[in-house]
Amino acid sequence: MVQYSSSHAPSDRLSAIFGALADPTRRAILDRLTKGPVTVNNLAEPFQMSLPAISKHLKVLERAGLITRGREAQWRPCRLEAAPLKEVADWAEHYRRFFEESLDRLDEYLKELQKKEKKHGRKK
Amino acid sequence: MVQYSSSHAPSDRLSAIFGALADPTRRAILDRLTKGPVTVNNLAEPFQMSLPAISKHLKVLERAGLITRGREAQWRPCRLEAAPLKEVADWAEHYRRFFEESLDRLDEYLKELQKKEKKHGRKK
Repeated sequence: MVQYSSSHAPSDRLSAIFGALADPTRRAILDRLTKGPVTVNNLAEPFQMSLPAISKHLKVLERAGLITRGREAQWRPCRLEAAPLKEVADWAEHYRRFFEESLDRLDEYLKELQKKEKKHGRKK
Repeated sequence: MVQYSSSHAPSDRLSAIFGALADPTRRAILDRLTKGPVTVNNLAEPFQMSLPAISKHLKVLERAGLITRGREAQWRPCRLEAAPLKEVADWAEHYRRFFEESLDRLDEYLKELQKKEKKHGRKK
């Protein structure tokens, strides 16, 4: 009998990362940060959100390690961090064989259906 | 000024998928299901969890489209679904260029540090 409970501690990093990604505004913030570091004020502009609302999102992203913030009191730029994004990519990659095989089977099934449709299709 | 709010509707699929993945038990269930469909009873065994607890997790996974369940009243096997996993992989893939460049830069920086260490290193 395989035991999963011990190897999957409840407060794991990956859960925090996925939790942080479960929001469209937070994903849009990450997308914006691929272009380079930016201040909270500049970040808030395109989202039409209050600074406290954006700050809340940034805290969630920071706790998950997805962003870091500069130390400068006046200009605390937000910066995207590479490692957690790579963890997500690696996690998803692990399933690639499964989903590619699945989608290939679906593709074959649809082709088979089309063939049958042609063979027994309504002749007008 | 770029507007993000309208293109990122709050109740989007990807948020539901990431939300469902933000739990180690749910990720372990998905991992188990790569080996093939399985009943709730068989699924509950290795997790040392009650059936209602497992059922709750399955409902979250089902709502996110990550699994489907058979119609048979007695034997309702859970089945992994490929499409949402591919969505996660595609999302993460979009950041690959960013995180590979970042990690390369870190690698170069560490090599540079090692070089300096060798040059100015303590001679014993």
